[in-house]
Formats: sequence, C-alpha cells, structure tokens
Amino acid sequence: MSMQTQSQSGVKAMDKSVFFFSKDQTDGKAEMRNLLGGKGANLAEMTSLGIPVPPGFTIATSVCDAFYKAEQQIPSHVQKDVESALAQVEKTIGKKFGDNKNPLLVSVRSGARVSMPGMMDTILNLGLNDQTVEGLASVSGNERFAWDSYRRFIQMYSNVVMSMNMSMLEVSLEDLKDDKGYELDTELTVEDLKFLVKRFKQQVLDSTGRKFPEDPKEQLWGAIRAVFLSWNTPRAITYRQLHAIPEAWGTAVNVQSMVFGNMGDDSATGVAFTRNPSTGEKMFYGEFLVNAQGEDVVAGIRTPQPLTKKEAEGTGLKSMEEVLPKSYDELVTVYQKLEKHYRDMQDLEFTIEKGKLWMLQTRNGKRTAAAAMRIAMDMLDEGMITEEEALLRIDPVSLDQLLHPTLDPDAKKTQLAKGLPASPGGSTGEIVFSSEDAVAKKEQGKKAILVRIETSPEDIEGMISAQGILTTRGGMTSHAAVVARGMGKCCVAGCGEVQVDYNKKEMRAAGYVLKEGDIITLDGSTGGVYLGEVAMKEPSLEGAFERVMALADKHRSMKVRTNADTPKDAKTARDFGAEGIGLCRTEHMFFGHERIDVVRQMIVAENREERRKALDQLLPMQRNDFYELFKTMQGLPVTIRLLDPPLHEFVPQTDEEVVELAERLSIDVDRLRRKVRSLHEFNPMLGHRGCRLAMTYPEIYQMQVRAIAEAASQLTKEGQELVPEIMIPLVGVDEELQRLRELAVKEVETVQQETGQKFEYLVGTMIELPRAAVTADRIAEHADFFSFGTNDLTQTTLGLSRDDSGRFLDTYVESGILPADPFVSIDQEGVGSLVQLGTDLGRKTKKNLKVGICGEHGGDPQSIEFFQRAGLDYVSCSPYRIPIARLSAAQAKLKRQH
Amino acid sequence: MSMQTQSQSGVKAMDKSVFFFSKDQTDGKAEMRNLLGGKGANLAEMTSLGIPVPPGFTIATSVCDAFYKAEQQIPSHVQKDVESALAQVEKTIGKKFGDNKNPLLVSVRSGARVSMPGMMDTILNLGLNDQTVEGLASVSGNERFAWDSYRRFIQMYSNVVMSMNMSMLEVSLEDLKDDKGYELDTELTVEDLKFLVKRFKQQVLDSTGRKFPEDPKEQLWGAIRAVFLSWNTPRAITYRQLHAIPEAWGTAVNVQSMVFGNMGDDSATGVAFTRNPSTGEKMFYGEFLVNAQGEDVVAGIRTPQPLTKKEAEGTGLKSMEEVLPKSYDELVTVYQKLEKHYRDMQDLEFTIEKGKLWMLQTRNGKRTAAAAMRIAMDMLDEGMITEEEALLRIDPVSLDQLLHPTLDPDAKKTQLAKGLPASPGGSTGEIVFSSEDAVAKKEQGKKAILVRIETSPEDIEGMISAQGILTTRGGMTSHAAVVARGMGKCCVAGCGEVQVDYNKKEMRAAGYVLKEGDIITLDGSTGGVYLGEVAMKEPSLEGAFERVMALADKHRSMKVRTNADTPKDAKTARDFGAEGIGLCRTEHMFFGHERIDVVRQMIVAENREERRKALDQLLPMQRNDFYELFKTMQGLPVTIRLLDPPLHEFVPQTDEEVVELAERLSIDVDRLRRKVRSLHEFNPMLGHRGCRLAMTYPEIYQMQVRAIAEAASQLTKEGQELVPEIMIPLVGVDEELQRLRELAVKEVETVQQETGQKFEYLVGTMIELPRAAVTADRIAEHADFFSFGTNDLTQTTLGLSRDDSGRFLDTYVESGILPADPFVSIDQEGVGSLVQLGTDLGRKTKKNLKVGICGEHGGDPQSIEFFQRAGLDYVSCSPYRIPIARLSAAQAKLKRQH
Repeated sequence: MSMQTQSQSGVKAMDKSVFFFSKDQTDGKAEMRNLLGGKGANLAEMTSLGIPVPPGFTIATSVCDAFYKAEQQIPSHVQKDVESALAQVEKTIGKKFGDNKNPLLVSVRSGARVSMPGMMDTILNLGLNDQTVEGLASVSGNERFAWDSYRRFIQMYSNVVMSMNMSMLEVSLEDLKDDKGYELDTELTVEDLKFLVKRFKQQVLDSTGRKFPEDPKEQLWGAIRAVFLSWNTPRAITYRQLHAIPEAWGTAVNVQSMVFGNMGDDSATGVAFTRNPSTGEKMFYGEFLVNAQGEDVVAGIRTPQPLTKKEAEGTGLKSMEEVLPKSYDELVTVYQKLEKHYRDMQDLEFTIEKGKLWMLQTRNGKRTAAAAMRIAMDMLDEGMITEEEALLRIDPVSLDQLLHPTLDPDAKKTQLAKGLPASPGGSTGEIVFSSEDAVAKKEQGKKAILVRIETSPEDIEGMISAQGILTTRGGMTSHAAVVARGMGKCCVAGCGEVQVDYNKKEMRAAGYVLKEGDIITLDGSTGGVYLGEVAMKEPSLEGAFERVMALADKHRSMKVRTNADTPKDAKTARDFGAEGIGLCRTEHMFFGHERIDVVRQMIVAENREERRKALDQLLPMQRNDFYELFKTMQGLPVTIRLLDPPLHEFVPQTDEEVVELAERLSIDVDRLRRKVRSLHEFNPMLGHRGCRLAMTYPEIYQMQVRAIAEAASQLTKEGQELVPEIMIPLVGVDEELQRLRELAVKEVETVQQETGQKFEYLVGTMIELPRAAVTADRIAEHADFFSFGTNDLTQTTLGLSRDDSGRFLDTYVESGILPADPFVSIDQEGVGSLVQLGTDLGRKTKKNLKVGICGEHGGDPQSIEFFQRAGLDYVSCSPYRIPIARLSAAQAKLKRQH
Repeated sequence: MSMQTQSQSGVKAMDKSVFFFSKDQTDGKAEMRNLLGGKGANLAEMTSLGIPVPPGFTIATSVCDAFYKAEQQIPSHVQKDVESALAQVEKTIGKKFGDNKNPLLVSVRSGARVSMPGMMDTILNLGLNDQTVEGLASVSGNERFAWDSYRRFIQMYSNVVMSMNMSMLEVSLEDLKDDKGYELDTELTVEDLKFLVKRFKQQVLDSTGRKFPEDPKEQLWGAIRAVFLSWNTPRAITYRQLHAIPEAWGTAVNVQSMVFGNMGDDSATGVAFTRNPSTGEKMFYGEFLVNAQGEDVVAGIRTPQPLTKKEAEGTGLKSMEEVLPKSYDELVTVYQKLEKHYRDMQDLEFTIEKGKLWMLQTRNGKRTAAAAMRIAMDMLDEGMITEEEALLRIDPVSLDQLLHPTLDPDAKKTQLAKGLPASPGGSTGEIVFSSEDAVAKKEQGKKAILVRIETSPEDIEGMISAQGILTTRGGMTSHAAVVARGMGKCCVAGCGEVQVDYNKKEMRAAGYVLKEGDIITLDGSTGGVYLGEVAMKEPSLEGAFERVMALADKHRSMKVRTNADTPKDAKTARDFGAEGIGLCRTEHMFFGHERIDVVRQMIVAENREERRKALDQLLPMQRNDFYELFKTMQGLPVTIRLLDPPLHEFVPQTDEEVVELAERLSIDVDRLRRKVRSLHEFNPMLGHRGCRLAMTYPEIYQMQVRAIAEAASQLTKEGQELVPEIMIPLVGVDEELQRLRELAVKEVETVQQETGQKFEYLVGTMIELPRAAVTADRIAEHADFFSFGTNDLTQTTLGLSRDDSGRFLDTYVESGILPADPFVSIDQEGVGSLVQLGTDLGRKTKKNLKVGICGEHGGDPQSIEFFQRAGLDYVSCSPYRIPIARLSAAQAKLKRQH
C-alpha cells in the first residue's frame, strides 16, 4: 500500500506542471531551474528565503514542449492545475480574479532556463475589463491609476497576444497628447484615458477583426499561449542560436499577482545590480523610476534615477537612498541576503507599492568580461567562492572584448556627444540607421555603427552585425545596453545630445549633420562619440585579468601555443601568455613585396636548375625569418609548417598582370601564360599542395629546412637553446612523411656538419586529411609530433569548402541540422571522432606522442573542452585568442575532473 | 652439438642463394617460385620429373635485393656459391668453362616470380672467346656454327651488358650481306663470320671505350649483373606497374649449359602451347625453326613452321611432326606429362640438338580470356580441376577483351591484307608508325593503330597507348602477339602483305598508300586489316563464357548491379547479367537537347514560383525516364539517385553562351550573368551539391520523387511489381537524411493516394563523405540502405581532386607511395577502413541494413575482393564490367573461404 502511494506521488511529482509560490507555501526551489525556468525558480527560492514576493505560480517548461507537440494546445490537466493554482493565489491575496469589486490582477511573464533579456513578451495588469477597472478604481481609491493600468494592459495585450502593430495605438496616444497640448503621459486625465481605452478597443477590432477579450480567463489563456508562442519567434530563434540554447528547452510561464509601482509618489519600480556589471566594482548599483511600472525602466523610455547617493553625485538627480530611504534600506538588506545566498552578483527587479517593497526577480547578473573577472577575484578574496568556482564563473568568449583595441587617449579627436558608457571597448564604422542596413553593410564586408533612438528585440540581427551601437534614449539597463554587454560589443546608450531622423537617414550632433555611410567612432568605456575614425591602442591587461590568467595556468594541463607567422604576432602572443608557436605558416612569408617575384621565378622555372637559382635567393630571406621568430620566442617551441598552398596562389590571375609580370621577369609571356594555365585547379583545396608539392619539387622543402637549420645553428652559436619543430603538411600516406622526413633529416644534418653546431629538432606532421586520421598508427612511425589541422580536416571530413559553403551553411545552423558552424566550433561527432581516432592510433604506435591542434578551433572554448577530453597536449590559436584558450583549457580540465 | 649443427644448417638453408639442377641432383622445386623465379623453379621441377633439361643453376631472387642494397655489388658469399655451382655443372657435363679444348658454354637468363615476356634480357653462348671458339669448332666439328655462335654472342652481350646500340652491329652485318649479295644470314661463310667478329669487337671498343671481355668469368659476372640491372630498366618498371608487380620481388638469374638448335638440320628450336592460347581449344600448338637458336623464334624474325600436321594443313609449311617425328613424339610425351603435372595449360620452350630433345622452359601459358574460360571449363570436364579452381584460373580483368565490340561480319569493308589473328577483338584508329606517336595520339585523345615491322620491348608504352597493333613480321608467339594478348588488346601479326616505310611514315597494301593519320581497322580474331572504319557489333557471349558466368553466380554471395542512366545501358547490363541498377544518375537525364533549357529556367528562377513552373515542365519527362527504366529492369531493384551535381554544371560558362541563352530564355542578360557568377564555386567538389541542394530547394527533389512515384504507380497499375529505391546523395549529417526522407515519404504517399496504387519503396543514402562513414550509426536510423559512393569518398578521404590529381598521382603510383591509382582500385587502408567502419556502424543500428557500393571500384576485382571482406551485399558497376564483377565476386567469396 505504502509503496503504491509512494509510486503514485512519484509519478505526480514528475508530471507536476504548475508550481505555486507564496510566503506560506512554495512548491519550487532554485535547483528546479530546468523545469521552472530561471525566473520561476528564483521567485520560488526568494519566497522560501522569506523575501517579499507577490504570490503566484509557474507553469513548467515541460508544458512548452507538450504545447508544441499537441499542435499548440495546452493539455487539459495543465488547464485544471492552473485553475486551482489561481484559486490559491486568490485565497492568499484575498482578491478574486475577474471580480468586479476587488479584482485580482496578474502579470504573465516568460522565463526560460537561461535569461533571454527582452526576447520573451510580458503582460501586466491582466484581469482588467470594463467592469473590473471600476473595482480597481474604487479599491485603490485612484481612478486615474486604474484607467491608466487598463490602457497599458490593452496596449500590451493587443500587441503581444493579438499580434497588433504596437505603433497604431501609440499614434492614437500621441495624437491625443498633441490635441491636448500635453508633454508627458502623466498629464492624461481620467477622461482622456477612458477615451483612449474605448478608442484602442475599436482600433483592435478594426485592425485584427477580433474583439478585445473582456473575459479575464480568456485573457489569461491567451497570454499563456502567447508566452509559449514567443519561444519560436524569429528573434527568439536568433538569440538561441547566438547563445547555443537548444530549442527543446522551452520556456516556463510565470503568473504572478500584480503589485503597482505607479500608485503615486510613494510607489516606484527599479532594477539593481549587487555589484557594478561593467567594472565589477563592489558597489550597489541601479536605477529606479518613481510612480512607474516595471517596463518603463527596462524599455528605457524615461531616463531613470540612480539608487545610491554616491551614484547620484554630480548628476543633478535624486537617488532612491534620498527619496525613499526606508524602502532603500529594506532593499539593501534584501540584496545582501540574495548575493550571499546565490554566491554571485545578482540582477534584481523590484517594485514599491505605496511604500511596501516587493521583489519581482533575482538572477545572476550579466556582466562585462572585466566585471566578471573582478567579481570572481573579489568573491574569491571574500572567501565566498573557491578558485575552481571563480574560474568557471568567467565566460572565456567574453574575454574577447578586453583583448581588442580601445581608443588611444592621446589621439586627436572631435567629440560629437557624450552618452552612457553602456558596454566597453572602442569601435569605428559607417553610420546606419536600421538593423537591415547594418546586416547589409556586414554582408558587403563593411563595418557599421548602428544608430537608433532606442533598440528593441527586433534589432538583434543588426546589433550582431554592427561594430558598435549608439542609442539616444535609455539607461545603462536599457535593451541596447544589456544586449550589447552580453555580446561584448561596444555601446554608447542614452546619448540625448544626438538627434536622429530615420526618414532622412541622418543624425545631428555638435552642429554636424552626418549621413548614412559617414564614419563615427564610439568609446563604450567613456560614452564618447567622435567624428571620423579615431586611433586605437592595444588593451592593457592588468589586475584581475592577470590574476585570472595565473589561476587558469595553475589549473590547466593543456599547453597553449599560438599561430603566428611574424615576430610581431609572436610578440603579441607571448605578451598574452603563449607558450610557443604551434603553427608558423611559411607561405605568408613569401608574399612580401621584395619576395613574391623571386617566388614566381621559382614557380615558372623550366627545370630544377632554374628553380634552384630562385630558391638560392629565397634562402637568406627565409633564414632571417626563422632567426627572428626563434629569437622572439626565446627557446619556447616553434613549429614551422613547410610550404602548403598550391603554387597558383602565388601567380597573378588576370592576363594584364601576367603580361606585366612576364616583362618584369623578362620571360616569354606565352610561356608564363601556359604556366599559369597549367597551374589552374578545379578543386584547389584537394589539389597539388602541401607535401605533394615537395614530392614533385623536393628542393623547395630542402631550402626551407636549410633555412630553419641555419637559423637554429646561428642561435645555438649565440647561446640560445631551441628545438625547432619541422611540420610537413597534408600528409595522407605514411610513405610521404617517411620520405620527407628523410629529406629533412639529411638537410639538417648537412647544415649541422657545415656549421659545427648541434641542436635538437623534431619532425612531425599535420593530421588534416581523414586518411591521415584513420592511418595515424602508421604515420606516427615517422612523426615526432602530430598537429591536427582542423580547418582542412573539417573541409574534407564534411566535404565542405569553406570558401563556398556560405550560401547554405547558415541555413544548416539556423535550422539546427548542425549545432554550430563547424568552422567555428569543432564538429565533435564527425571531425572530432577522427581527431580522437587519430590521437589514439598515433599513441598506439608511440605512447608519448605529442599531439596538438592548430586549426581555428584552438581558440574556441567548446572545442578546447573537446580537445581536453580527447587527450591533446596543446592547442594553438591566434594571438588575440590566447587568454580565451588559457581560461578555456583550465575550465575544460576542471569540468573533466568533476 | 646437434642443435648447433641444425641451427647452422637452418641458417644456411635460409641463406642459400644458388640452387643447382641436373638429372642427378636438384636443389629446387616448383613451390620455391618466390625464391627461384618462375623459370628457375620450373627448371628444377622438370629436372625432378625426369624430363631432359640442360644442367645449370639458379641465383635466387633474394640476391637481386641484396645486389641493390649493396650498391649494385654481388655479395661475396654468392660469388663463392656460383663458382662451386659452375664447377658442378662442369663435372656433370664433362666440359670446362673457358677451356680451350672442350669449352662449357652457358646461357644466362632472368626469371622473376611471374613471367615478364621480353622484359628481361637473355644472353646465349656465353663463354666464347677467340680461343674457346676454336675448341667449340673442333668439338662440334662445325666451324661455321662455332663462329656464328660467337658473333651472335658478341651481338647480344655488347647490347645487353655493355649497353651498346644493337643496330650498329646489325648494320655491319647487313652491309656485309649487301656487299656479298647475300639474302639470308645462313649464307654467311666462316670467313665472313670471322671478319664480323673482329669488326664487331672493334666497333664495341670504339663505341663504348671498353674492350669486349675475353675472360669467360668476366663475361659471366657481367651477364649476371646485367640481369639484375635489367630489373630496373624503364620498360621493366612500366611492365611491373601495368601488372602490379612489387619492385621488391626482384629477379632470379638462371645460368644453364647451352644446347644448340643451330647445329644443322637435325637441330631445331621451338615453342609450344599444350592448348591453343587464343581459343583454348584442346590441341597441341606451336612453332619451331630448324637450325636456329631460341631467340630466333621469339623475336619473330623468321616466320616459323607449325608443330603438328593439322596446323600445317594448307599453309604449305612442313610440320615438326613430319620433319622431326622422333623428337616430336618425345615432345608430345613431355607436354602431356607437364600439363598433367601442373594441371594447367603449359607454354614450353625446347631445343633439339642433333636429334636430342632438351626442354628449356615450362610455365603456365598466357592466354586470351576466351581461351582461359574454355581451358578452365574443359579441364573441369576432364576432371583435372575443381569448380573453385576453374573459377580462380580466370583473370576477371581479362574478360574485358571479350566484352567489347568485334567487327560486324555483315559490314561492308575493303580488305587491305590478312595477317595472323594474334589477339582477338576489333579496333579502329589512326595509323602511327612509332611508339612515341602512339603515346602522343593517346594524349591528344585520339585512337591509334600502331603499325610496326616487328615490336620489341621498347614498344611497350606505345602498345599500351594504341587501340590495336599490326606487325608485318613474326608469328603467333612473336613479341607483339604475346604482349598484346596479355593486354587483351587487338593484334594482327606477321602480316607480310603490308609494306612499311618508317622514314616516309607510310604503309602500302592492296595498292593503297596509307599515311600516318589515315584510318584502318583490325580484326584480331581473323587477322583481317581493313581500310577506314568498319562497323562493330556487340560481343556475343556464349559457350564457355556462359558456363563460367553460371558457375560464378553459383559460388558468389554478393549481388552485382549496374550503374546505368538510360534504358539502353540498363538493357546492355541486363544482358551481361546485372541483377539491378545500383546507381541511376538522374542529372544525366537533364542534359538532353529539349531539357537543358528547362533545367536552366529552373536554375535562374528568382523565386519558388518560377522554379516550380520549370519543374512542372520537367516532371513528365522525368516520369517517363523512370517508367522506361523500371520497365526495362522488370522488377529488379532500381536505385535512383536524386540530383547531385552543383547547379553551375548546367549553365553555360562563356559570356557568348550566356548572352545567347539569355536571348533564348527571354531573360535579362545581366540577371543571367549575375546568376552564373553567383553559382561559381572555388571547390565545386566540396560545394553546394547533393542533398545540400535539396535543403535549399526542396522542390527539386519533390519533383524527382513525384516522377519516381508516378512512374511506379503506372507500372503497378500495369501489373509489374517493383520496389524503387530512392537514394539521397552527399549526406554528411543524419538530420539531412531525416528531413529529406520525410520529404520523400510525404511525396510518395501523396502520389499513392492520388493514384490509388500501392507499392513498396526504399529510401536510402550514399555514404560518400568521411563524416557519413564515422556517423553511420546515426544515419542508418533514417536509411533503408547504404550505397558507398567510393569515387567521392576517395576524393574527400585522401583530399584528392580527381580532376586535378593527374599531375602528381602518376608519380605517387610509380614511386610506390600508393600501391595503385586509388580511383581505379580502392585504397583499402584509408578509404577502405572508412567503408568498413561505415558498414559496421550502420549494421550496429540496423542489423540487416542492405549495403552496396556504386563507385567506379564496383568493377575492379581487387576492390571487389575487399568489398566481400567488408561484408557488402552488392557491388554496382558500369554495364561492360558486369561479367568481371560477377567472376570477381565469386573469386572473392572463394578466397574468403580458404
């Protein structure tokens, strides 16, 4: 009997789809985030902590999935559970939903597992109709408040649930204000509001063909459906892709009794961060609006007031600390409790209704990379979190925003305006005034600055495409600011000195009129907006950054090298902490002005003799290249890849250029034409390149190996220890490596005899063909190391040309056929399994074979996590990705341990 | 003690490098072929059987390897062993090598594991010098014979060992004959020969700067070295490549006491086959020359006489049966013994010295495919071999020669001449008179007939390049005839009615003067030579062919399908025994004159609507294509691959063509230009093709699936059962197949509802990307069958573009980096391991998953053997390869069992 009961209750718990919360009873908790969404879980958790939260209930994320599976119907058992949860709210509050005397009003909000700011739609004041509005007026004793709430509700509901164009009702509102000569919404009278409600309803009917629903239950079900439907709007889909959020997660729905920040001057609404989300500084930080509803702050329509006196200093604004000192003290107690409880910086939403504080939301706050690092280090120092937690708190990708140049403070610049420093870093680009134009510029390969009065979720694509974002309205927590920070993209917000005219596609500031296409520069760290392009300077990485990196180095096991072809890149990479060069692409050294013609002479040579002559000219140049590179790396390992691209990449393609070159080289133009033609390939990616070149023209690799060996000899003589690593590209057959290894060894030994200098060296290969991966055991017999060339391995394994796949790869990622762009994040299932196979086979032959990776994936955190699992010894990435790789490698190691 | 002895003798046996043979003692046997070479092993075996063989010894093939490893020096222990074996020969024969009175003369011949006719050089009469020639004269009582042997020896030795141009001495000989007014060599007197010997030696000194060696030992070592060196001549290398003979095998050297067929009219030399090597008929068959040395027959310089009366009938020639009846009877006894012993048709060489028969060689005889089949079936009937042996006796590749057209007997033709039917089949081409010209024609994509007075090993490359070979001298066992049969290439030999003038590059026959480039036709089955092009007819495959095929079908387990795109191809394939279509490439159907513009309309469509319009026009055409194909295959499985190539393959590439097309389609030329440009791809092999097209334009596959379903419905209505197999190409991600499968199933079901006809159908995919192979378990969830597209799988796995690899792939195969062209014979280690992996993973998901292969490798015997091992259900190949595949599949199964 008891077992049966247990089992039944077990089933019930699993199937439970509606979770109630109030100070007396709470079904959920923070750990149930997957089921309740972030918002729902945290509302339950706050309630349990005794923090004042308006009672309500959460419909689980699992219902979202069920909703889509049932052809967008809400299952009947969920309907029943919602009804009874609603009854429980009525009982707790002592109001009745739809009651004409003392109506319960609710908010309906979405809430996914992870925060998706602005992506999901929210409805407030639900439950109002022509009858209940009168009840609200009489209970609140504030008729204007009641009717203002009603007209807001109609605006929100008609837009979100009935898909009506928002601007239509806004225009009516503005028209009325114009007629009456009002400046602000607050000037609207009760009669104005009653007129507007009537007018709005008529407009809804005219525009949608449907009557605005008067039945509060119908309103509720409509709103719940709308939340579920908003999970699959194009903008939600875009956001999910950008943040790799699976479609299957779904969203929860939070139905919560309303509290009102707009019931007079003892009411307010606001948002707060427990620490500064931009710098990480330990200070309470936020904004509020007196006599306003929550959406007014987030939408950035009115410029809000700061919370603390300190913030208010010099702004001429009054802080909450001054205006509502009692509520402020209460809020401080709550925020400290919450940060301590969650052991992380919190992002809070609150409302004060007639002097009473209500918390509407808490969540881990989004922050800039700089803030993330500082907060992690501070909390570590405060003993709040461990080293491991501190490292895992920082999103490696976000470091990118620190690693790029900022405005040179010494550069001459013409300031156009100053706004809020909403998201740090500098950016320069052509002005565009719409999201579409930003996307178009990006497609043309141009940099754009998106200039908007304010941004909305519809602008996501444009924000992704733009270099930086400038808005003329809204605060630090406006849509533009929050989203830009999340993206690590430079943003200046609320820059009221700038006037924007969308129709004329122009902006005015400081007496200048700037048109679409004109260039401006933003400084997201100061809020400055400048005319034209402004010089940038390299980032300085100190303080928390250095501590985080040192901590990462302490906890990681994989080495981090860089892909660098020049001493300058190598220097940058060393400054970022690179532990060697994993890939030096020697072909990049061939394109120099004084070299390319010599290279061409080598290519058009009719015989080995002629070719040798050209190579003899290249030898001292290459030797010097390697000498400088080795010297810069001061004994750290340096992997030199011998010539890789097909030779046609070095010869001109148009006939004019061919004629010109023939003259310059004093060779017959027809001979050159024939040579250029003969080099043409249908599929150059699969052509005569890599070690195949050396099988045909061994003297090219001979020259390169000699240059490496001579440079190494010279440095050895100068007392520098070094172990050059010679890397043979595009090996598919073990025999190739065997023969070219012999060639390299012979050449190095000859040079060592000539110079009398001895030094260690390695000869290894890139694994970048599927055949190399599946025969890695045989290849390893001739290799001192493997380096996976995952760029080419991705192209061959997927049969996907990087140059051509643009026209369909986006569709593949968007429609979920591929989880991510395989050239950005390694295709673990396909390419990854060949990396694993190649590594395992290689080590079967040589137990301690050194294995690394030098494709673009070497700087991608998800890929790095995979490489840790695959047992690689090092990753190599571009210089600016080094810190990302260091942190990612540490996180990968830590995740592997847990 | 005894163990030590044993061990020593064990070492000695392993190291044994010289193997003696005589009627009293023989070290070798037939099974030691790898060590002794074919010739050496068979000489030992014949000796053991009591058959008369001149005594001698064989230097093992292992010495060849040692020779090359020791920088072309013969190891000293081998030198000692040769000395003592030579002493043993002297003792057996009772003559002494280099003795002035009774000198031992020897022949030195090469002998690799497998017969390489004409590829290795032979030296006869070695041991003669100015002193020993006198001894030979006195012992033989024939001064002319002795001096003739001496001048032959000098000619051979100076050419083979001293690399002297053969023609120089020949010119001296011809000059002398002219001076003296002689017609034949036999007219040369003793004085003439003495004069020639002296003159030859002077010429050798003048030409090579070295004296002709007088010391017989020096002669012997020179000859042995020359045999080893001849293993690596360019022509030997070419032959090895053509027949996939590893370089490491090396050649043995056979040193054998001389017997002389040129000691008068009771002496002769000849070659014989125990059955007819051209037809397989059970009849003793061969040629001989009275008073001649062995090389005279093989070189084809004198037209020889037949062996049997039956052969001689109507030729006006005297047979050996008549001329030398005693020796003939002896020979018959020997050949029957040998055929019975070896259980295979033998190719014999013999010499009769003064009435005494000596066997110089026996080996399994080369034969045409027709002969191979007939001999196998006859021997099976005779109870000599089993079914399994019979099948394994036939080289599947050789069947190719039977499967190509022969001259239409009813065609009008102008006969130019009639020669010997040396190698069957018909061929037409432009006349060329040199090997180089034949190669050049082939490179120009033209068909050539190589016309030569006679061919020599230097002509190998030309013979490979030519369609057919015509010689004016030499018999059925002349170089041209033997090599052409080996290649399965049409050859008419010994066609004395044709006069060739190399200098003028013309030939004369039947009053016609034909120049280089004029067209002639050869009939290798009758010996006919015809003016111009003659109509060909399809081969009729009866008798032994049908029995062999039936036997193969009985013993094989893999099915054999065909790659066919038209009812005509499908019919041909069915006639050859195809059990279904494994690959119908639908794109080939799009190139028809009346279709291509509709296809182009579809491609340039600006929107789905326009595209649909064009597709609606294509639908009835495709439906008819499939209807006819299904009808032809009468219920056998038919796999239709949906559109695969990138769309740019269908649009014109030059601007002129674009302008013309724009006019024809009445569309804006700039729009068309833009479209053509936008379709351009850098690596089309890795581009927007295969199922990727359908992810972008699903309506294309929808149309094709509808066409298949409508055709199948129609046939179902007509009472034909069929199970169409819809194949989705280039799947790399399981989701692709999942979605396109859904699309196909939906379309088929719609058509079935519309027509009310039900039929079974399968939806499967090609595995042609490495990613598909490594994720085959997931892909199999959505596939009813797999078909490996090994062409593309080879390109992607090896990163090797078929279109571009020509310039280095040859080098790769020649230098042994790859064992064979991976586009001809599957790369088992690389591509093969992915085929194995894909098959295993696929069957892990679906135990009985049907797996086939439809790349070019489906018709290659070595690849088929691999596919059997990999557990595939069927192979699919081009129609003319079907019989090869059937036999190969049987052999693969049989080899797998043993």
